[in-house]
Amino acid sequence: VFAVMIGTVFLEAVLRRLPELQPGHVWLAGAGPGDPGLLTLHALAALAQADVVVHDALVDARVLDLAHPDATRVFAGKRGGKPSTDQADITARLVTLAREGRRVLRLKGGDPFVFGRGGEEVLTLAAHGIPFRVIPGITSGLAALTAALIPATLRGANQAILLATGHGAADLAELPGGDGGLDWPAFARLGQPIVLYMAIPRWRPSLAP
Amino acid sequence: VFAVMIGTVFLEAVLRRLPELQPGHVWLAGAGPGDPGLLTLHALAALAQADVVVHDALVDARVLDLAHPDATRVFAGKRGGKPSTDQADITARLVTLAREGRRVLRLKGGDPFVFGRGGEEVLTLAAHGIPFRVIPGITSGLAALTAALIPATLRGANQAILLATGHGAADLAELPGGDGGLDWPAFARLGQPIVLYMAIPRWRPSLAP
Repeated sequence: VFAVMIGTVFLEAVLRRLPELQPGHVWLAGAGPGDPGLLTLHALAALAQADVVVHDALVDARVLDLAHPDATRVFAGKRGGKPSTDQADITARLVTLAREGRRVLRLKGGDPFVFGRGGEEVLTLAAHGIPFRVIPGITSGLAALTAALIPATLRGANQAILLATGHGAADLAELPGGDGGLDWPAFARLGQPIVLYMAIPRWRPSLAP
Repeated sequence: VFAVMIGTVFLEAVLRRLPELQPGHVWLAGAGPGDPGLLTLHALAALAQADVVVHDALVDARVLDLAHPDATRVFAGKRGGKPSTDQADITARLVTLAREGRRVLRLKGGDPFVFGRGGEEVLTLAAHGIPFRVIPGITSGLAALTAALIPATLRGANQAILLATGHGAADLAELPGGDGGLDWPAFARLGQPIVLYMAIPRWRPSLAP
């Protein structure tokens, strides 16, 4: 009755060996940069099991289509400069859903712990005693480089790669310079490439090459 | 005859929609940090299709077990301080296998373009006119943070994360300081966390907190 054999095992057996999403638990998972082929098996298994999928605007529709057909999809998108769901509301919702005994998948674009605010959500879940798990995803900044066939590191060319937000937390962005308090000239002097996340709203012509 | 339904589609249909590995082509894919659950669907599909899998020492045995049973596995491991396969030999081998019309998967731990020397291999393949594709993986440095439940970025705490090699290219490592030419004090002054790859051989007690 089962046809997808991978190596010497059946794919179903591989998926079954993965941890199970329990009722009342929340899994934060990264969906990667968009391409469903860049989903991890853990994320796929989470989509197949979750009763509720709370997702960002950045999660691709082709990925959401892999959720269980009976699962409730909750949009919790935030978009720079547009009306958005408040972060506190999102985490409160995760707590409520978990307490109702739902199997909750919090699905984010990229990686939840790389400019994804996963840390804040996990702190709130922990404070409320909700069992959780974090599944990394391919962070979009690095995937974008690969899509453009640009190695993030190349022997003889660079020995570091810097991932930075061009947006910054609102409180820090109020510092002089308005760029989130990062010492950009010091970053530039390192002579290593910088990948900027969420930088378009703060883009200034003076930054262009 | 097919039992794994994900969302409203069958997993087989998802995998079939992914690009096909053609004879004479080389795919460089990242296997991620080790856990087979962190493999991407693209990497899984590549393992299922490849005639030859040329892999590093860092690729987990559970991942290699997902290769097609008829596939030839070629170990091309490099380990700091141990006898190793020369990088030029590895790329020459990839070229030869592709010219023989094999479907070649070059499988690396983590992400091929993040301290994985994928850039050099791609340059060689391009120079020889071998068609290739690069599939990113979850880079091990960021996955390790998640495994330890440490957010790489946390709003209000940091706005950048620095990925750096603690090993350095042999030629650059000969520079004064022996640390690959990076200006470590300047890195430290940024006040942002640094993730070090391959740093153990150069670890000095003076670096400890």
